[in-house]
Amino acid sequence: MRELEFYLAQRRKIAAFDYVDFLTEWDAQTDAAAGSIAADSVYQAALSEMKYRLTTDPEFERCVNELYLRRDRLDEALRHEIEVVRRSVEDTKRIPMDEYARIREITAKGYPVYVDAKKKGDFALFRPYLEQIVDYNRKLTVWLERPQLKGYDVLLDRYEPHYTQAKYDAFFNMLRDKLVPFVRERTAHPTPVPQWTRQRFDKAKQREFCEYIRDVMCFDKNFGIMKESEHPFTSGIGTDDVRITTHYYENDLVSSIFSVIHETGHATYERQCDPALNGTLSGGGASLGMHESQSRFYENMIGRSRAFWAVHYPRLRQIFAPQLDGVGLDEFVAYINRTEASFIRTEADELTYPLHIMLRYEIEQQLIGGKLRVGDLPEYWNGKFTEYFGITPPDDAAGVLQDVHWAYGDFGYFPTYALGSAIAAQLYHAMSRDFDVEQSLASGTTREINAWLGSHVHRYGASKYPDEILRLATGEDFDPNYYVDYLINKYSV
Amino acid sequence: MRELEFYLAQRRKIAAFDYVDFLTEWDAQTDAAAGSIAADSVYQAALSEMKYRLTTDPEFERCVNELYLRRDRLDEALRHEIEVVRRSVEDTKRIPMDEYARIREITAKGYPVYVDAKKKGDFALFRPYLEQIVDYNRKLTVWLERPQLKGYDVLLDRYEPHYTQAKYDAFFNMLRDKLVPFVRERTAHPTPVPQWTRQRFDKAKQREFCEYIRDVMCFDKNFGIMKESEHPFTSGIGTDDVRITTHYYENDLVSSIFSVIHETGHATYERQCDPALNGTLSGGGASLGMHESQSRFYENMIGRSRAFWAVHYPRLRQIFAPQLDGVGLDEFVAYINRTEASFIRTEADELTYPLHIMLRYEIEQQLIGGKLRVGDLPEYWNGKFTEYFGITPPDDAAGVLQDVHWAYGDFGYFPTYALGSAIAAQLYHAMSRDFDVEQSLASGTTREINAWLGSHVHRYGASKYPDEILRLATGEDFDPNYYVDYLINKYSV
Repeated sequence: MRELEFYLAQRRKIAAFDYVDFLTEWDAQTDAAAGSIAADSVYQAALSEMKYRLTTDPEFERCVNELYLRRDRLDEALRHEIEVVRRSVEDTKRIPMDEYARIREITAKGYPVYVDAKKKGDFALFRPYLEQIVDYNRKLTVWLERPQLKGYDVLLDRYEPHYTQAKYDAFFNMLRDKLVPFVRERTAHPTPVPQWTRQRFDKAKQREFCEYIRDVMCFDKNFGIMKESEHPFTSGIGTDDVRITTHYYENDLVSSIFSVIHETGHATYERQCDPALNGTLSGGGASLGMHESQSRFYENMIGRSRAFWAVHYPRLRQIFAPQLDGVGLDEFVAYINRTEASFIRTEADELTYPLHIMLRYEIEQQLIGGKLRVGDLPEYWNGKFTEYFGITPPDDAAGVLQDVHWAYGDFGYFPTYALGSAIAAQLYHAMSRDFDVEQSLASGTTREINAWLGSHVHRYGASKYPDEILRLATGEDFDPNYYVDYLINKYSV
Repeated sequence: MRELEFYLAQRRKIAAFDYVDFLTEWDAQTDAAAGSIAADSVYQAALSEMKYRLTTDPEFERCVNELYLRRDRLDEALRHEIEVVRRSVEDTKRIPMDEYARIREITAKGYPVYVDAKKKGDFALFRPYLEQIVDYNRKLTVWLERPQLKGYDVLLDRYEPHYTQAKYDAFFNMLRDKLVPFVRERTAHPTPVPQWTRQRFDKAKQREFCEYIRDVMCFDKNFGIMKESEHPFTSGIGTDDVRITTHYYENDLVSSIFSVIHETGHATYERQCDPALNGTLSGGGASLGMHESQSRFYENMIGRSRAFWAVHYPRLRQIFAPQLDGVGLDEFVAYINRTEASFIRTEADELTYPLHIMLRYEIEQQLIGGKLRVGDLPEYWNGKFTEYFGITPPDDAAGVLQDVHWAYGDFGYFPTYALGSAIAAQLYHAMSRDFDVEQSLASGTTREINAWLGSHVHRYGASKYPDEILRLATGEDFDPNYYVDYLINKYSV
């Protein structure tokens, strides 16, 4: 079929630009100097324009539509891809090309300003960029509007297909009803932070242990490095280039460890996609929520379990002798499962975490709905935060500037984090029907867990919708009760 | 003029692909894991194809030819660019697109094999890749042949316009006549390596001193980082993203230092180009020879001078106390100007260095001329090496595998290194007419030197041919006598 041939040739080019996108972002966050990032943004804008032209090329669109009409003849993965690409072509065409390229330039130039503003705890520095970013996202909701999809829903759907405010509201209302009172009670009188944590933990030793953790999680280092960046993240392309970053704090022993477990969770998802999906537009995770379910699964269900540390704590003690000499396994496990109200989402404990997401979800609704101005954001943030957590951020760095997502231009992204945690709990329940998860950790690696997730979730990549994959893996639709039950059960001890 | 408009729009895209080329190479040499490099090469091939299509687009060619006819109306820099681009379009069109893309894939896949082969000192591992690379370069000489340009000359001209075997032969013959006997005599009884150099020099401290050196050379770190890689290099795009790498050896105090001075020399050239050339196809250095003249100028004429170390040796002694406690300034300067026959080009002293280049030049002539087979290369290398230096490489890592250039696919590149050293000497002579170079170092930085090179060489970027820039800077044509005189004078002491 001539249309298929054209489609595959064009897809090869689009995938190459996906590679460029990955590489420029990786570079900006790990190597490029501040002045260089601004200079390079002009090239990135030109590349964005070329990618835009490929995606909106009328002949490409014709071929996609033709293939869509004849999709019954295509294999399952390609059929799904054509459906998704058809929608994406329609969406991209609705975004004016100059705006499509300009937002890349704005976020590229704004990123070092964001980093500087966060360092100085001064929101005003970053405000002009964020105003442009919010403005762009509000325009997106108009450009991409559909009969069943308006306003903030447009943005939500971009990160988690089939999830709208109606569904998220139901989910967050459930958390609010069942979880918030429980969290309030559990955090009212937090146990004090143990004295042994207030030592200096050498960065090189942290790195040594984090590399060990990557081995424990069976990550093949021939296919991706671990580096440092301000905000830990996973990046890459296909199954064979999957990279993570972390951030070492010498006054915090466990921050880098849980970042690495979290990011290696994301990385394992990417590594275990069906390699046949490499070079297609259906590689990588099915959605952000599904991706986050994997990272949070490894970080919280596995990485904070006593069973995990029963095997690996001796190694940590060995590396950090004599600092951990007097600290027993139970004491350590209690510490990493401490719960208290705190300012920073990425450092928040498992139990208070969803409240941080709820806050952002509500703020995004206000901003995108035009009910809140960017200039009023710090005050609004601090007010809401005090209402939920009973404590007030001391500055913008610990408040509205803490996360990088808005600086990247991403609105509608945050809610997927809470969704991911809930999916993780549901998957844990399904996995436990097949084998004893904690028991499997005694082997010293996560191999059995990786294998289960590989065959039930990872291998599909983005060749199915996330809700379909969840049904295949668990036999059920999304059900947040597993999450609430899991949390209440775990933190009632 | 419509043609100019089209040209500028297309140039913007081509420059964006130059940025991609820089970034993919930077990534491959500093971050990408071995398995990832192979996986990413398929995307790089697709990008190469797109760049090829832009450069050979018939409408682009028509515009370039039209602008060439009307070049009198263009400003000087654009006139030169159009001349160069017209030639480059002609050349690129002669290379079959599949070959153009495939060589990128071969070198991308071959690079980790090369690194592995070098590590194991086993040429046979890399041989299949090098055979394909030599084969490609031999094909290039046929595709790009012109009436006045045949065989190896085709490759030489790509790296140093207007330089052919006839000119290089004259240059190397002069070195052979005047320099080789002198070198033989000076290296017959090398002074022993001092005992103090045989200590362990901490990598982090080396890095600290190297960052200090970048400050001494007035490099603004807001526009480019310093990182590590197997083989030190400079990379970047435009004046505002200029990066270098180095390699730290804990058993060698000075290797990383001179790498950094060398690479910062390259970087200073890039930084001091006229910023108006950013985004054009005339940014960066005028040629490889001119580029190397800058790096060698800083490395040898400045970085190995007593005047330089009179200011900066105290800092080095401070960082490496107590290891350098008993080592005086004169002793250190004598050490960094030691001369002896040695295996590794990049570690060779200033005096023996050109012999290493002569060897490679002759080997390339043989390989490209079809008189030497790749399979016979290690034996041929070792034989020639023994003839010139009186010592035989113990393995391929210290012999034919030591340099990365051939692995990158570059033939015709090496001779520019010797040319660069000679140009450096000629520039030093011209600069010395304007101010006392050694005296200027007493200020603690290379600011005055940077300024002279900036206004006499760097600002032109590639908007003039290198021989023209040399004439403007020195008032003379290329004259290797300055180089020979400089070396004999310096090493006769």
